[in-house]
Amino acid sequence: MRTRSDIRPGRADGAPPRASTFAEAYPNSRRVYVEGTRGVRVPFREISLSGGEPPLRIYDTSGPQDVDVREGLPPLRREWILARGDVEPVQRPEPDGRMRNGAAELVPPGLRRTPLRARAGRRVTQLHYARRGEITPEMEFVALREGLDPELVRSEVARGRAIIPANINHPELEPMIIGRAFKVKINANIGNSAVTSSIEEEVEKLRWATLWGADTVMDLSTGKHIHETRQWIIRNSPVPIGTVPIYQALEKVGGVAEDLTWEIYRDTLIEQAEQGVDYFTVHAGVLLRYIPLTARRVTGIVSRGGSIMAKWCMAHHKENFLYTHFREICEIMAAYDVAFSLGDGLRPGSIADANDEAQFAELRTQGELNRIAWEYDVQTMNEGPGHIPMHLIKENMDKQLEWCEEAPFYTLGPLTTDIAPGYDHITSAIGAAMIGWYGTAMLCYVTPKEHLGLPNREDVKQGVIAYRIAAHAADLAKGHPRAREWDDALSKARFEFRWEDQFNLSLDPVTARAYHDETLPAPGAKVAHFCSMCGPKFCSMRITEDIRKFAEAGMQEKAREFRERGGELYVEEVARS
Amino acid sequence: MRTRSDIRPGRADGAPPRASTFAEAYPNSRRVYVEGTRGVRVPFREISLSGGEPPLRIYDTSGPQDVDVREGLPPLRREWILARGDVEPVQRPEPDGRMRNGAAELVPPGLRRTPLRARAGRRVTQLHYARRGEITPEMEFVALREGLDPELVRSEVARGRAIIPANINHPELEPMIIGRAFKVKINANIGNSAVTSSIEEEVEKLRWATLWGADTVMDLSTGKHIHETRQWIIRNSPVPIGTVPIYQALEKVGGVAEDLTWEIYRDTLIEQAEQGVDYFTVHAGVLLRYIPLTARRVTGIVSRGGSIMAKWCMAHHKENFLYTHFREICEIMAAYDVAFSLGDGLRPGSIADANDEAQFAELRTQGELNRIAWEYDVQTMNEGPGHIPMHLIKENMDKQLEWCEEAPFYTLGPLTTDIAPGYDHITSAIGAAMIGWYGTAMLCYVTPKEHLGLPNREDVKQGVIAYRIAAHAADLAKGHPRAREWDDALSKARFEFRWEDQFNLSLDPVTARAYHDETLPAPGAKVAHFCSMCGPKFCSMRITEDIRKFAEAGMQEKAREFRERGGELYVEEVARS
Repeated sequence: MRTRSDIRPGRADGAPPRASTFAEAYPNSRRVYVEGTRGVRVPFREISLSGGEPPLRIYDTSGPQDVDVREGLPPLRREWILARGDVEPVQRPEPDGRMRNGAAELVPPGLRRTPLRARAGRRVTQLHYARRGEITPEMEFVALREGLDPELVRSEVARGRAIIPANINHPELEPMIIGRAFKVKINANIGNSAVTSSIEEEVEKLRWATLWGADTVMDLSTGKHIHETRQWIIRNSPVPIGTVPIYQALEKVGGVAEDLTWEIYRDTLIEQAEQGVDYFTVHAGVLLRYIPLTARRVTGIVSRGGSIMAKWCMAHHKENFLYTHFREICEIMAAYDVAFSLGDGLRPGSIADANDEAQFAELRTQGELNRIAWEYDVQTMNEGPGHIPMHLIKENMDKQLEWCEEAPFYTLGPLTTDIAPGYDHITSAIGAAMIGWYGTAMLCYVTPKEHLGLPNREDVKQGVIAYRIAAHAADLAKGHPRAREWDDALSKARFEFRWEDQFNLSLDPVTARAYHDETLPAPGAKVAHFCSMCGPKFCSMRITEDIRKFAEAGMQEKAREFRERGGELYVEEVARS
Repeated sequence: MRTRSDIRPGRADGAPPRASTFAEAYPNSRRVYVEGTRGVRVPFREISLSGGEPPLRIYDTSGPQDVDVREGLPPLRREWILARGDVEPVQRPEPDGRMRNGAAELVPPGLRRTPLRARAGRRVTQLHYARRGEITPEMEFVALREGLDPELVRSEVARGRAIIPANINHPELEPMIIGRAFKVKINANIGNSAVTSSIEEEVEKLRWATLWGADTVMDLSTGKHIHETRQWIIRNSPVPIGTVPIYQALEKVGGVAEDLTWEIYRDTLIEQAEQGVDYFTVHAGVLLRYIPLTARRVTGIVSRGGSIMAKWCMAHHKENFLYTHFREICEIMAAYDVAFSLGDGLRPGSIADANDEAQFAELRTQGELNRIAWEYDVQTMNEGPGHIPMHLIKENMDKQLEWCEEAPFYTLGPLTTDIAPGYDHITSAIGAAMIGWYGTAMLCYVTPKEHLGLPNREDVKQGVIAYRIAAHAADLAKGHPRAREWDDALSKARFEFRWEDQFNLSLDPVTARAYHDETLPAPGAKVAHFCSMCGPKFCSMRITEDIRKFAEAGMQEKAREFRERGGELYVEEVARS
């Protein structure tokens, strides 16, 4: 296991490397790689410290930084995938034929790829390999990344308790794992809509979200050029990309839910699987008979996918085609190793609707669908709510573990109150931290704009950071072996007045430093043994330094004498005074 | 019980009323009063709604708005206090003699008061009245405010499970209660320091903090003019004011902890009690023998008061004088009805130090001190940590309930991780919500500047709002009878596309509206049946409206038929497909 820093020269064509935001966001950090035995190189962010302290290495989702977005990231996994000998190129006269008229030019040649799929009769999923006892490079990668045993990774994947979303058409991916034995992960949603946004903005949001720590990104685009936007995003994404294919299918039928058909949906699945989407949200648990259970809710059905499928079911008086065709969906996903994220289309959209019959009916069905997915070696996780008051959160986790047989749970928040639009990153970070502690494997972020508008760059950052906090708090509470070292390094820096180290160890170093500068901008304040809260004469940490000297000099001795003379003395003295 | 809105004319001198921030912060809200049987008038904020919805009344801490800060708030409680016949004016040749040279002119005549104290042999505390079975106007006030039975208030106070901090020298107070049978409260800290800030800024911070919902405010000033700043603050505060008297005592000895004496501290207590401070943080639990327990901590002693007392103890090799003189302190506090907030001077300042021996040793002593306070009819609560990972939070609450016999717990956060300076309002809102649910009665806020600098106006607002969220989430989880109606009103407005109502029902209406305007600024968007997240054709809430019409028309019937025909059908179909 060797390490070296990631210093690459400019590209071969002489163009300068793309200006890196990594260096701006994380002063005194560099990307380093730990090398494993199967040819894997696992990235970490290494923070250099002062005062003779060893550098701290932390989990890093930011991906390679000096990359031309018109060429995409290097195909890290390509050799691993081809070496397994179980895939073949998709033979198609016109690989970009699925792009609509006039849109093909939106994808530059450097971002086009010939898709792969499983050879006939083969399953190419991480679950399949794990079940047959194989530790893949992807598994070793995540084991090194988490600081855990590769065999633990394999066995958790084999058992269905963890997934490694890793489409064979997404070789740019730095593999990661979602499961409750591992670090709690966070997802950031991006995506343009009919109202606003462009392709470039979405790619920039992707890079921005992973820079701050998003472990996966869902592309929820609903406007024009969904296919082309996704192509840009996947080719530039070091993290798994999730989608909700029904959104694109709906675009194809002009936005009229009733006009959706299984065939259109199936073609959309294949289209996206060939592009390299790593997991699909599929609302197959929204059954016809559950729909009336939502009619008396305060906020009805708030999931977009759920409401589309409900509308379709009602219009045709037929069962949800995602449910009736579920086995065909499994066959498709097994051919590319796309993982299921079984949607919770009936999740509660308000505190009033939490943990109701509709929600739990769908959760039971999610469990039934997990078991079918596993028959096909398809990896699966379950989406969860939503708006849930604190005292009802644990019931969600308990029922999911039981009914869904410990498949990874992936929740939106939950938001613990409805009264704070504009601050729902906070209302939901509370619930997210708790459910993460209880066992949820991935937390879908909520930005300050939730319920109000589309997140901009700053909102994405605020959402990701609130969720990094929630996930890390959960890791501490779960006792993840690597979690505490970060807190300890920061607290030690704080106590020793290593201000620069304290800033650099922060989730957001630049903001921490800027806040300190607001009160004490002078460079001398960065080495001062006091801060703005109490001023130079009045600093509790400085006083404690003095106390330590006393204490270590002989206080243990004096305290012992003191106790021997009788600690009771003082109680009596109080009684007298 | 009658209600009328708070519309007062300009002052008698013809000056216009002070420009109100209430109207700017809360569009479509007005302050209304509910009148009780003992002459009490209890304020609420009433939010007017559209669409035939009844207005919503919520708990309001903002205080009277059209007040000249050089005259102070009206003395709401004066008649109640005098009617009890147990107080007398403090006879002193020069009431402002305690002000230092050259500072008296900082307090305008309109803010000077003749202090009151208990007549000889009388105890004037709410605990005393409650124990003798009396429901005071203060108790009725808080009962109406909480929507609970006055007898419940009395019995909880009598039992020591709740306190009503209400110094007889703070008649401007709108009484509130701190106890776990009631709404979870939040405290905001303000206060200048040696490094920055002015009196005017501190008064403005007070008004700002209560406008956004601070239930109490602690004045932690440590710089010049502590006395005068406090006089301005108390005279203008509708909420209880807490202080840490050792800070001012330390100022009096030039900042040298070793030079502190019981006499200087005692005089400071009396000085502050006569001004009207409602609760004192007293670090009487930092015992000499506990100090060595902190020597091996990652962050030692981080409480300012705790470290001052520790330093004093070490320098003199004597027991903490706050402990040895505790009964004299009780006598003083009983004469003015100042409540104890027994400090946690040894609280953990990092995740590494959470729930350690030093912390819990002090907590046991807090319990012992509660019992002594109760002998003197002095109301008391206990301060709690600090930095605590989620899985260790409940142990804090459980031990406090047991060792401190259910006296109200008042915690700082707790912060659930150390890694996010700049975002500690979020790291701590997570812990605060949880411990509030477990039973903590009041949550001390943390602002984004925690550990980095002094909070400015915006930081105070961010801290208060994060803690309003935490406290309300806890109220929902505890099932406070009034909590849910607010969430339900907002969610109903959201679902019915009553955008203006949704904004006005938010904790921060102006921010909610501004976020919506960023994406959809047109006035028409405020009445549109869609929002920026999905656009007009794709709105899940609009789809659900359609579904409701279907469902209510006959879906119940169809669903029944469906189940009778056999829900199993579809499982079979899945098995086939």
